[in-house]
Amino acid sequence: MVVSPINGSSPLSHSNGRTIPLSTFSRNSFVNVEKGDPVAFRSYWEKVRDECTVEIKGDEWMSYLGDTNNLCWYMVPQMRDAILRLHNVVGNVVTKDKFLVLGTGSSQLYQALLYALSPSESSHRPINVVAAAPYYSEYKDATDILQSRLFQWTGDAALYDKDEPYIEVVTSPNNPDGTLRVPAVNSRVEGKIIYDLAYYWPQYTPITDQLDHDVMVFTFSKCTGHAGSRIGWAFVKDIEVAKKMIRFTQLNSIGVSRESQIRAAKMIGVICDGYKILKSIESDHLFFDYSKRLMKERWEKFKTAIEKSKVFTLTKYPTSYCHFNKDLSEQYPAFAWLKCVEGIKDGESYLENLKIRTRGGERFGVSSKYVRVSMIGTDDEFNELCTRLSNAKRE
Amino acid sequence: MVVSPINGSSPLSHSNGRTIPLSTFSRNSFVNVEKGDPVAFRSYWEKVRDECTVEIKGDEWMSYLGDTNNLCWYMVPQMRDAILRLHNVVGNVVTKDKFLVLGTGSSQLYQALLYALSPSESSHRPINVVAAAPYYSEYKDATDILQSRLFQWTGDAALYDKDEPYIEVVTSPNNPDGTLRVPAVNSRVEGKIIYDLAYYWPQYTPITDQLDHDVMVFTFSKCTGHAGSRIGWAFVKDIEVAKKMIRFTQLNSIGVSRESQIRAAKMIGVICDGYKILKSIESDHLFFDYSKRLMKERWEKFKTAIEKSKVFTLTKYPTSYCHFNKDLSEQYPAFAWLKCVEGIKDGESYLENLKIRTRGGERFGVSSKYVRVSMIGTDDEFNELCTRLSNAKRE
Repeated sequence: MVVSPINGSSPLSHSNGRTIPLSTFSRNSFVNVEKGDPVAFRSYWEKVRDECTVEIKGDEWMSYLGDTNNLCWYMVPQMRDAILRLHNVVGNVVTKDKFLVLGTGSSQLYQALLYALSPSESSHRPINVVAAAPYYSEYKDATDILQSRLFQWTGDAALYDKDEPYIEVVTSPNNPDGTLRVPAVNSRVEGKIIYDLAYYWPQYTPITDQLDHDVMVFTFSKCTGHAGSRIGWAFVKDIEVAKKMIRFTQLNSIGVSRESQIRAAKMIGVICDGYKILKSIESDHLFFDYSKRLMKERWEKFKTAIEKSKVFTLTKYPTSYCHFNKDLSEQYPAFAWLKCVEGIKDGESYLENLKIRTRGGERFGVSSKYVRVSMIGTDDEFNELCTRLSNAKRE
Repeated sequence: MVVSPINGSSPLSHSNGRTIPLSTFSRNSFVNVEKGDPVAFRSYWEKVRDECTVEIKGDEWMSYLGDTNNLCWYMVPQMRDAILRLHNVVGNVVTKDKFLVLGTGSSQLYQALLYALSPSESSHRPINVVAAAPYYSEYKDATDILQSRLFQWTGDAALYDKDEPYIEVVTSPNNPDGTLRVPAVNSRVEGKIIYDLAYYWPQYTPITDQLDHDVMVFTFSKCTGHAGSRIGWAFVKDIEVAKKMIRFTQLNSIGVSRESQIRAAKMIGVICDGYKILKSIESDHLFFDYSKRLMKERWEKFKTAIEKSKVFTLTKYPTSYCHFNKDLSEQYPAFAWLKCVEGIKDGESYLENLKIRTRGGERFGVSSKYVRVSMIGTDDEFNELCTRLSNAKRE
């Protein structure tokens, strides 16, 4: 990585407009499946690229204000309408009687929620924030980065035994292991629950229920694959929680990019239009059908590679009825969660030797026998990953 | 404001694409000059709207990554190049030997800087954060919202007399009073200085110096008027500070909207192209010439209204040589800072009675005899403001 400061004579090199060009792998280069950059779905957006084109003129969307008639004043009506329409099409959540709060990705909403759900009286001790292990590797640092007196990371929800107020983050399907989750804390005190539903979309899991919790968080990144837009949203039942979240977002970034909102609204519109005129178009042009097929194919190929390797075992997922697809289906999580077989202690190091870069279990609050692998990178990356895993020999 | 939750049968009303429509004032409606929404420059962008059009296709800019060769990995090369080019044209800052860190508006950079400049050892007491009064009304809440153990708001820099580490925010030209500023703390301890240069652009003030401080923050909002884009940037000398800021931005929002970056780069490109081909185009098409003329006309009209009112006095500004415009010029700040004449104690209430909504001095750490008025709202608002001020009679 070039880390030199700005130099007066630095060349003004440009990448092309379609994000960073992707190189083909040489045998010696690393396959990086450590992060969860959701670029797998780009092939779909290439098919519909022209109908998804967004055009913004010089004098449009200049104001801080998006909709002065909405509590969430920085959200434009098009964005609000698109989000409601998408959930109406997918049927994964009850939107009625909730407040919709927009964020700069779900990361900002996580911070806003910790602030909004913490007791505001300064006499209180910090509220405990927990999640059942294995939990998303960034929760701890995102909670503790500013050493707030309002809240503090307390670790594994399954081990929580204090009779003190707490916030539990329930990620379902879970990152890293893809399991469907319910709250894990067993306490006499009533906790506040944040449902992180980033992966509760039909390409990853059967839509079994229309969820109706107090606080539910979604992100555009993992839904459509447009991670660069930094759009997330939360459905919140309590107006006071919604107001505090909006106050946080105001102080943190004075709202959310208008350009991203307009584009996200357009992309969601194209997805929903597809399902409206269902019979007249090929199923290849239906986003969730396309992306589910892609995930299914990858998982089948991946399972074969893992079986060949004899080094790892995989999480087993149940088959359930999907109300969206109207069929029985397995789960196809965005990440694979591998466990080393007996005799291998460190999955990340083992794969590092095969030039596969992953994220080890300790980052997720469990043992280094586990390792997380992204299933949503480029085709190139994914295929090379499978090849290298298939050829892995136990030492 | 409609604050009802989502209702299943809510109509999907749309505003047009050019932000919220602006109504003409009736005598009974409020003129709201309380906030600093910089929509004054929209008339310029209407002239060049087509050449500023940005088009983004469905499969573009999907990744979290903007430039893996840059320390600030979420910044696309086009954004970086545009920012450097703009400062090169205006000559307001030395960009060489600095790291460029992008933020979701300067608000996020403020938070990132407090984190990056605070001592990280948990044994430390929170570092004191100060700014000379009158200071920007949001600094206090933005500093204290999460009750961090790393930093705390300590108030007026001019009154700071502790022999403890501190961070001083120097806003120059200052919000609210438009004055050019230098650090105000007088302490035996060396402090860290954040220069907030949101208004150090030629339409507001003569560009007297090419500034070369350790930490300098800018925002796209107040430069071009595109507040909805949420783009800000900081020039930072110390790589460790830059790294911590980027880590903060990663945890806070995993970077900055790609759509906003692409659009901001395009708009800045149009401004810079104008000055490159200077002689062939009308000066009305040069952004800083146009916007400075607009600010000058507003200030002249406003001064006449204030003189007629006999209720307020205005800050006096020096005339200086502007290296960008190559002439002697006054300042035309984005806000007017009014002081009530003897006998009137509360400027905000006085103006509220005239149906003019403003922000009173106490929000800025000074007496309620002072009041801040936005000079960068719509023409409609501004003209009505002047009419009402002209007709003000002292009670």
